[in-house]
Amino acid sequence: MTDPASTALRTDHYELTMLSSALRDGTAQRDCVFEVFTRSLPGGRRYGVVGGIERVLDAVENFRFDQRTLEALERDRVCDERTLDWLREYRFTGDVDGYPEGELYFPGSPVLTVRGTFAEAVLLETVILSILNHDSAVAAAATRMSSAANGRRLIEMGSRRTHEDSAVACARISYLSGFTATSNLEAGARYGIPTAGTSAHSFTLLHDNEREAFRAQVDALGAGTSLLVDTYDITEGIRTAVEVAGTELGAVRIDSGDVGVLARQAREQLDSLGATGTRIVISGDLDEFAIASLRAEPVDVYGVGTSLVVGSGAPTAGMVYKLAEVDGRPVAKRSSHKESRGGSKAALRRHKPTGTALEEVVYRNGAGHEPPAAGPHDRFVQTPLIRGGRRVENLPGLEDNRQRLRHALVSLPWEGLKLSSGEPAIPTVFENR
Amino acid sequence: MTDPASTALRTDHYELTMLSSALRDGTAQRDCVFEVFTRSLPGGRRYGVVGGIERVLDAVENFRFDQRTLEALERDRVCDERTLDWLREYRFTGDVDGYPEGELYFPGSPVLTVRGTFAEAVLLETVILSILNHDSAVAAAATRMSSAANGRRLIEMGSRRTHEDSAVACARISYLSGFTATSNLEAGARYGIPTAGTSAHSFTLLHDNEREAFRAQVDALGAGTSLLVDTYDITEGIRTAVEVAGTELGAVRIDSGDVGVLARQAREQLDSLGATGTRIVISGDLDEFAIASLRAEPVDVYGVGTSLVVGSGAPTAGMVYKLAEVDGRPVAKRSSHKESRGGSKAALRRHKPTGTALEEVVYRNGAGHEPPAAGPHDRFVQTPLIRGGRRVENLPGLEDNRQRLRHALVSLPWEGLKLSSGEPAIPTVFENR
Repeated sequence: MTDPASTALRTDHYELTMLSSALRDGTAQRDCVFEVFTRSLPGGRRYGVVGGIERVLDAVENFRFDQRTLEALERDRVCDERTLDWLREYRFTGDVDGYPEGELYFPGSPVLTVRGTFAEAVLLETVILSILNHDSAVAAAATRMSSAANGRRLIEMGSRRTHEDSAVACARISYLSGFTATSNLEAGARYGIPTAGTSAHSFTLLHDNEREAFRAQVDALGAGTSLLVDTYDITEGIRTAVEVAGTELGAVRIDSGDVGVLARQAREQLDSLGATGTRIVISGDLDEFAIASLRAEPVDVYGVGTSLVVGSGAPTAGMVYKLAEVDGRPVAKRSSHKESRGGSKAALRRHKPTGTALEEVVYRNGAGHEPPAAGPHDRFVQTPLIRGGRRVENLPGLEDNRQRLRHALVSLPWEGLKLSSGEPAIPTVFENR
Repeated sequence: MTDPASTALRTDHYELTMLSSALRDGTAQRDCVFEVFTRSLPGGRRYGVVGGIERVLDAVENFRFDQRTLEALERDRVCDERTLDWLREYRFTGDVDGYPEGELYFPGSPVLTVRGTFAEAVLLETVILSILNHDSAVAAAATRMSSAANGRRLIEMGSRRTHEDSAVACARISYLSGFTATSNLEAGARYGIPTAGTSAHSFTLLHDNEREAFRAQVDALGAGTSLLVDTYDITEGIRTAVEVAGTELGAVRIDSGDVGVLARQAREQLDSLGATGTRIVISGDLDEFAIASLRAEPVDVYGVGTSLVVGSGAPTAGMVYKLAEVDGRPVAKRSSHKESRGGSKAALRRHKPTGTALEEVVYRNGAGHEPPAAGPHDRFVQTPLIRGGRRVENLPGLEDNRQRLRHALVSLPWEGLKLSSGEPAIPTVFENR
């Protein structure tokens, strides 16, 4: 097993064969610009949400070929001796600009721009795309859920439905996207995100009856805990819960059934028992549409699992890492519908004086290109992330980016917050081509 | 950051609050049986494929609460002092039985049975489900693709479309499921799976023209390499490829367009140029349906990316980890449609004398329960995996399980190999309830 901290083998075989060939003919040293963007938003979504930038920066820092990694490449004859020698010294020394985490993006937005020699920059393709495609897919789904929840609390609890490491990234992204807490303890430990959880059906079944289970939980966690009331009969469960915990009971959770109806009944019953402050937590196969449909019901907290970690129908964001420039000359594939626009690009987001976003202007930048004129309400979206191989200091953290996303959503035209499929919330306009 | 080798925090918060409560009232020491199963197969699939057992066994072995882990739990006030003390000594000492990797499963199949005290067994829920839900979802999709490819070679190249660690697991599972190779170098290094890859469009664009790119690649990798011919014009690309590499050219790859038509044209052109042994590799948005639809075309190798790593429409397998028995007494939730069958269970797969599978018999086992009579063609599906906390020795490896899956597919009734949605290939019959 290779060093789990090194990200160097999170890489497609062909990155190394390309490197071998390019080292041999000298093209490896050509100055290149690679651009990460998406051609469209999946499923007619109105906006994308950038997730994973912080993890990309970590991955680039940890992209080193240690001894075990090099031995594996040699044993499997992935590349020649010259390439192995070159990899031994590898460290990215170029520049990276990109959209900050929590920023919205649209088709063609230059989400990340990587500048360096071909050799240095091509190697990062796979790991950068893995992170951005995964985290941004989850970010879009989670943000739609937050938006649908309309201020009510959301708890992420999908760890069991996805790869155990993916689960940690999902928990982080859910927090970025406005969730209140996650069930994932590793995410709590690693990123300082609030974690939450009380009990499962197994805890009730473990006991001789529901009352004993509730008693045990309240004894251990206090009356402010959340009791799961749908193991046997919900009405009975709620009555027992209030009898055991008193009217100070923190919350009841319902995990199955027609949750809208059940929430209303639970609210009435709790109120009639005097537990007017007891919250109602609803979980079980919720997605953004189910959350929106519960707006009129007395739900206080949503627990969301599966649909979040699988991107609610769009588990990958469809971003690509395309060579856009070689030695200052724009390049692009041109055989099919998958055509790309050549040349290094940046973006200006135009807004009305009210602050509402108008359009995403994607323009050629670099030598010989003037940026478009920016009005007082417009802003350039890319920010410097890496300079000369070093992470730019004092980049915004998770809390800042959480706020950024919240503000960005407010800037969308109202149609842009629709859950239904349609056109992107704002058009992308290409200038200076 | 916690120790990445420890799996202990790949865990939902509520497993630890349940543990706290159960340690307090003494129920933590009750003997429990937890069962992993699925209520249905996603999307009307005909069979499921067990993936991830080997990784589950690793995760259980590495499920230890080290100092950093305990400090994180204490800092975040996840559980009380007594629980932290108990966790410090944690190590699973129970038994696990399960379906081997590469085995087929059906609704209700007892894929994994975990026996131990409540305290020991409940903690493993999240990480076991994460692994089995992820790996089995990918295994089902990959197996359907292998089956559709009908003996032609398949290369997995989806790493960039999923979380960077999930990608490694996907590569491993693709090999289990009959793929020939993967692009993922970490999977090659860690699991000894063959890796493959040659070049991307960026390599062609890096060069002043296609001919120079092909020349560089052939110089570095030999004429047996695979040249990507669709950066500009495919007909032109194939002509140049054969001019540069000669008729010994290993393969051409086409990554876009109407690949069926393009494959036929490429075959004719290659043959007319005398490159009759040059293979045709097709990639770009292939799933099991696209692969099947290319059966009549002269395709030698399929490269599969996105659809594999996202489970081709079913990114999670829907397995649950349910408490089935407490101190020998069957237990089950009973408030809704999500009802489970209580009691510890095992499975017998019945076959016709021809070897064709007939039914999955799921029966109560343990004290007071006789297993059903097994005919000469029938077999018990579960095998011991962990005894007294220790992994059973000489368990079959990845190659064995790859063969197991191949044989299992042959045993299905022919309708069971259909790609269309419908009933499971064989019914599940519950006995001795």
